[in-house]
Amino acid sequence: MVRVVKSFTKAGQQAQDNRIKQSFELINTQLYSVEERIRSQAREFDPAVDGYISYACESSGKRLRPALALLVGGATGNICPGHLDLAVVLELIHAATLVHDDIIDGADKRRGQPTANAKWGNTISVLLGDCLFAHALKLSTNFSNGEISRRIASAASDVCSGEIIQTQRRFDLKLAIGDYYKIIEMKTAALFAAAAELGAFINEAPPEVIAAMKSFGMKFGTAYQIYDDCLDIAGDEKNAGKTLGSDLRKGKLTLPILHILNASTEAQRQGLSAAILRGSGGDVETLAVAALRQGGMAAAVAAGRKLLGEAMNLACELPATKYREGLRDLCASLGDLIGRFAME
Amino acid sequence: MVRVVKSFTKAGQQAQDNRIKQSFELINTQLYSVEERIRSQAREFDPAVDGYISYACESSGKRLRPALALLVGGATGNICPGHLDLAVVLELIHAATLVHDDIIDGADKRRGQPTANAKWGNTISVLLGDCLFAHALKLSTNFSNGEISRRIASAASDVCSGEIIQTQRRFDLKLAIGDYYKIIEMKTAALFAAAAELGAFINEAPPEVIAAMKSFGMKFGTAYQIYDDCLDIAGDEKNAGKTLGSDLRKGKLTLPILHILNASTEAQRQGLSAAILRGSGGDVETLAVAALRQGGMAAAVAAGRKLLGEAMNLACELPATKYREGLRDLCASLGDLIGRFAME
Repeated sequence: MVRVVKSFTKAGQQAQDNRIKQSFELINTQLYSVEERIRSQAREFDPAVDGYISYACESSGKRLRPALALLVGGATGNICPGHLDLAVVLELIHAATLVHDDIIDGADKRRGQPTANAKWGNTISVLLGDCLFAHALKLSTNFSNGEISRRIASAASDVCSGEIIQTQRRFDLKLAIGDYYKIIEMKTAALFAAAAELGAFINEAPPEVIAAMKSFGMKFGTAYQIYDDCLDIAGDEKNAGKTLGSDLRKGKLTLPILHILNASTEAQRQGLSAAILRGSGGDVETLAVAALRQGGMAAAVAAGRKLLGEAMNLACELPATKYREGLRDLCASLGDLIGRFAME
Repeated sequence: MVRVVKSFTKAGQQAQDNRIKQSFELINTQLYSVEERIRSQAREFDPAVDGYISYACESSGKRLRPALALLVGGATGNICPGHLDLAVVLELIHAATLVHDDIIDGADKRRGQPTANAKWGNTISVLLGDCLFAHALKLSTNFSNGEISRRIASAASDVCSGEIIQTQRRFDLKLAIGDYYKIIEMKTAALFAAAAELGAFINEAPPEVIAAMKSFGMKFGTAYQIYDDCLDIAGDEKNAGKTLGSDLRKGKLTLPILHILNASTEAQRQGLSAAILRGSGGDVETLAVAALRQGGMAAAVAAGRKLLGEAMNLACELPATKYREGLRDLCASLGDLIGRFAME
């Protein structure tokens, strides 16, 4: 796996993260506050629990959802304390879902660190995810406008339902590309959509702006999941900080694979199907190579870039500010990263 | 296990449930509405998910938390639509925690039916619990007073933290009785306390009444957990509808066992400790017999009855209505059930 794809990840995952983080320069101060507040959440728990909470919060990544909430806040008015609260809540929900995802996937590493389930086992991890989730939704009830907590809880519910549907459809070789989009819109993009929508809502932006930002978040989040799915096939294990090829081994059929299944002759399709169902290390490598050579990856890259182009157009409807440019730059960064997976 | 304790459960678990349900006669109409609304929640989910939701909601039991919310509603004013909403939300949270508990305990049956994990495996069950939880908290944001959803989310957070602490302290032979109470107040009684507290809060009862009802719910819920812990040691597997002795096999030290550990000589203590750590079928039986013969069960029964007496006294502070009597009768029913575990 690593050998096949190293050319796509010369700069390494860290550099990729840095490319995205460049778009955050505008909001570094506020992101720092969000980070502090996320860390301080552990103190809200019983001392017997706070160590687990700290660990789960610290390992959850790039803070993309907080960044989106803050940038939209700036682009639709001002970044106010409500945006920081929103950012914290969304990131805690994200952290909760990661803890449960890692149990389900049997993942032992995330961002180079042992996962909660690797460290403490599945029992503590199920409960840790629940704790984070309950705490996030408790924090969300602090908004004076109940509509905000309602939309956050609704997005969280979509995330969980999307995960169930994804699990049901594992190894389902009849999964349509439309079903794949539905799944990733629910399991991933719903939370990005809530970040952008509520970033505008908190500023009491006009309904059409709120709707446009929700759509922006949905498109950006969908593109982000496509990027993540490509990374699982063609990333660099050492730099990505997690086990690669796990989607295929677990029967998760992602866009590059669905594209080659769709474009194959019946005979090729039978061969690919058999490899997916066997799912051994060698089969996964074969599938990854097929996705790259037969244009599955290129098609996924094109789909991701199209979504990002649409998101950038939506951002153009906002007044010209540095934050609007920050949103566009965030899309451009992700577009660059996805682009690296295209066959050169 | 079954042989040892059959004398305590002659009438069977179903009859025990019926004894509690007698206290619900007053609120049968409203409980029927709650039941309908719980069942209808499944339709709020994606069609791919609703079958799981229906199954989890239907197997979750006696509807004690809804009954408490409704009785307190009647006893502090009128049972209004908000009480029905509260009842539905609390029962969904309870259903979510049961789904995750059954994964953690590796339980294959609950109330005579296969558990979600036995039916669909742990992956779907982790996500199913998450779905129920997210949906419950989403419903809770429909209350116009944000304080209600805040207190519900706070109780849910306590439940999860309590479960983590319980898991940490498995097989911890130094668990103090005070720690046991702290754990069960969090993992079980917090949701009962929220039911009773918010039942009064929705009626805009005076603060001292709200506080008294919270305390009522906490005491009743604690007594209920003590009953459930006794049942695990001395119940009747066929009628209880679940695997008994599982607390001991999983290293959960409950009140009857903690009492005999406390009252033992050092030599007896070493023997008991060794049996707990081995936790085989025969050891569990030995421990159950010890709990019965050495007064551990009697001490737990006394503790449960004391709490129920205190709860009844708190109910006496309310105006004399049939609902107040319903609350007192509910305490009396549970007292009768706990009483059956006392050595005759």
